[in-house]
Amino acid sequence: MIDITSLFKVTYGLYIVCSGNETKGNGYISNTFFQVTSEPPKFALCCNKNNFTSEIIEKHGFFSVSVLHQKANSEIFGRFGYKSGRDFNKMEGMLIKYGISGIPIVLNESIAYLECKVVQKFDVGTHWLFIGELIDAQVLDETNDPMTYAYFHQVRKGVAPKNAPTYIDQAKLATKVKSVKLEKFKCTICGHIYDENKEKIKFASLAANWKCPICGADKKEFIVI
Amino acid sequence: MIDITSLFKVTYGLYIVCSGNETKGNGYISNTFFQVTSEPPKFALCCNKNNFTSEIIEKHGFFSVSVLHQKANSEIFGRFGYKSGRDFNKMEGMLIKYGISGIPIVLNESIAYLECKVVQKFDVGTHWLFIGELIDAQVLDETNDPMTYAYFHQVRKGVAPKNAPTYIDQAKLATKVKSVKLEKFKCTICGHIYDENKEKIKFASLAANWKCPICGADKKEFIVI
Repeated sequence: MIDITSLFKVTYGLYIVCSGNETKGNGYISNTFFQVTSEPPKFALCCNKNNFTSEIIEKHGFFSVSVLHQKANSEIFGRFGYKSGRDFNKMEGMLIKYGISGIPIVLNESIAYLECKVVQKFDVGTHWLFIGELIDAQVLDETNDPMTYAYFHQVRKGVAPKNAPTYIDQAKLATKVKSVKLEKFKCTICGHIYDENKEKIKFASLAANWKCPICGADKKEFIVI
Repeated sequence: MIDITSLFKVTYGLYIVCSGNETKGNGYISNTFFQVTSEPPKFALCCNKNNFTSEIIEKHGFFSVSVLHQKANSEIFGRFGYKSGRDFNKMEGMLIKYGISGIPIVLNESIAYLECKVVQKFDVGTHWLFIGELIDAQVLDETNDPMTYAYFHQVRKGVAPKNAPTYIDQAKLATKVKSVKLEKFKCTICGHIYDENKEKIKFASLAANWKCPICGADKKEFIVI
């Protein structure tokens, strides 16, 4: 029998992956990026086929990976993690560097970046595995630690969006303790659960300008579950 | 210009990957394992073509992944990380469970395991990318945190062996501070560097039964570099 919680023991970082050019760029939050060879340095990136960024990577043949740090502000997850670039320009107002290949690299909240040229593409079902050869890489900040998915999940209570390789249907997780009197509210933008039983404050009692701690969404974006 | 140190900002866990059967099993330490799809749950594993375990995975069509915890003892890295199963039986004396497919799963120093059936295999140069569909997964220990490669590297001072996708040639790293009077000694088993300048104790002054903190090798396995 598969115990879904064992999947949380696999370690990941969190990254902003971008492609495009100065006219039209896009990016998303990925946790599935790792090195596959040392000579030459090549990396694998797993990206949902429906992601707008997948299309742009295919078109441009390059992608950049910005390594997020542990204290990264929640707006960056709201912007890149839970919304589609088909609906709005994610790059607007961001601190962007254009790489050797001309693709955008997000510098906000990042401690390093890597720029890769796509050399292979494999079909693994719902997702593509892009293999990229490293063409440039820089450290931006030596003082902060990289954000890990475990930290995002355990400390910051974030959850993977539906398109992520590591998406977990919450209904599949056995609820060990059931709240009978208090309610749970779900952020319709990022899926974050506000559990009155854990927080000890009724959702209705939160200030009107309270924001989702994960994606920065307004209170009105939450629904009872 | 590629700054090699930026590659250390990519986050990895550390795992014992095994395959084989009750008669002949083998395993190695991997840091390159991640989920690639959620429906069905599938994982990618990157393995050097020269690794003995690669051969065994190809032969049996299944692999197991045991998630190492942060306090894992150094002998397990010595046994699985820096030696080849062609030379000795790595499974001897280990606590082994045989999975649904009959392959060995190492339970020592592990907090969870995942068992996968190989469904695809991609050639990325020096390494194979095996895609495995999850057939079983269990949590073994809720109290310890997974070992991360950053922790292994920064706190426990471990280095990736030559066959790893993340292997770094130390000569490529710019030495910022050079020791002029004190010497460095390298473990010929795992590559760990004992730097007298950092340790403030001459290597010759260490007790005769002193062991490599990474792989447990004897003092005589060290050479001056």
